[in-house]
Amino acid sequence: MRISELGRRGGVPVPTVKFYLREGLLPPGEATARNQADYGEEHLRRLRLVRALLEVGGLPLASVREVLAAVDDGTTPLHQVFGRAHHALGPRTGGAAVEDVLQARRDIDAFLATRGWHVHRDAPARRALADALVALRRLGRDVDAEVFAPYAVLAESLAEREVAHIGEQGGSRADLVESMVVGTVVFEAALVALRRLAQEHHSALRWSGSRRSKRARRSP
Amino acid sequence: MRISELGRRGGVPVPTVKFYLREGLLPPGEATARNQADYGEEHLRRLRLVRALLEVGGLPLASVREVLAAVDDGTTPLHQVFGRAHHALGPRTGGAAVEDVLQARRDIDAFLATRGWHVHRDAPARRALADALVALRRLGRDVDAEVFAPYAVLAESLAEREVAHIGEQGGSRADLVESMVVGTVVFEAALVALRRLAQEHHSALRWSGSRRSKRARRSP
Repeated sequence: MRISELGRRGGVPVPTVKFYLREGLLPPGEATARNQADYGEEHLRRLRLVRALLEVGGLPLASVREVLAAVDDGTTPLHQVFGRAHHALGPRTGGAAVEDVLQARRDIDAFLATRGWHVHRDAPARRALADALVALRRLGRDVDAEVFAPYAVLAESLAEREVAHIGEQGGSRADLVESMVVGTVVFEAALVALRRLAQEHHSALRWSGSRRSKRARRSP
Repeated sequence: MRISELGRRGGVPVPTVKFYLREGLLPPGEATARNQADYGEEHLRRLRLVRALLEVGGLPLASVREVLAAVDDGTTPLHQVFGRAHHALGPRTGGAAVEDVLQARRDIDAFLATRGWHVHRDAPARRALADALVALRRLGRDVDAEVFAPYAVLAESLAEREVAHIGEQGGSRADLVESMVVGTVVFEAALVALRRLAQEHHSALRWSGSRRSKRARRSP
């Protein structure tokens, strides 16, 4: 297909498609004439993935490039691909490692070790979890890492199901890796949205004038 | 306390504290002399909240200001505060409402109605969930909103527990609202991190050479 059709089917304006080509987020098409190239279904698919990462995942361009490298890299052992994709997905936590941060990292390391989770020492999510613990403590909450235990239980049941589901879809290695990335980014956005919606709903149940909240209501 | 002590105890450099004061994120201290003011524990607490929203939540300044307004506003009924805080927390989805987006929004509205969740028509999370559905469909997945059902079940059990926990802490209205905001931002970051860590762990179980994965492994 021509670039105009590629853009139309991908829902992306042609100048943006050209930008992605220049940035290497899309591989070049097959040249058919001077200034003209032919694009296939795999271009369309990649274009849609790029768009999902940028728009739903809100990733910066540099991270999209890293994620695509993880998708395309045929040599990384499959069990490390999640780690690599997550590393590319960030977040980058560049905070100064002052004493309470170092303490929180040790606490989180111990927390994860207790659960028997095998994750890379430098996984960004490990740092992000420690940052959340630091934030709670700096806000004056006297908490240890076990405050996250109920979340870990839910996260593990979710992850087990998700990884199994990806495995059952079959397909090529690239399909599998793409499913991991999409699953991480898109369903993460969905989970966050659903938690907020459920909070709003349960807050209304508890604090609005509805019958159910009467019993639970506290002084305002 | 002086501004220097406020900064030190809040872990924020004095020029940054001054910036927050100018931006209205921190209320002014009590003037004690020309160019000198006295700050109390409530300033320290607010400073730590601002920092958590900026650093853990990754919110832009304008959103922090809106969230603080929701915390400080004593008139919004409590059951609407979650909605207001979430609205301020974003995300802003400004995408063009083309047909597949409108269809996804209708699908999500029906999905939430089926579950009996009461959430504001314009809740940003409603839009974010529809965007996730659009992304999946544009990636070629033939899915309806029920694909999110397992996530909704988990989100609801989590939210019910979280709202009950906030209610049981007691304290003033401002305490309650602050707990909502911190709970949304900090535990959201923790949940996202834990899901990624659990995915990495289960991916290793399934695809590494460990005994458990042998049975589950697919062709690469």
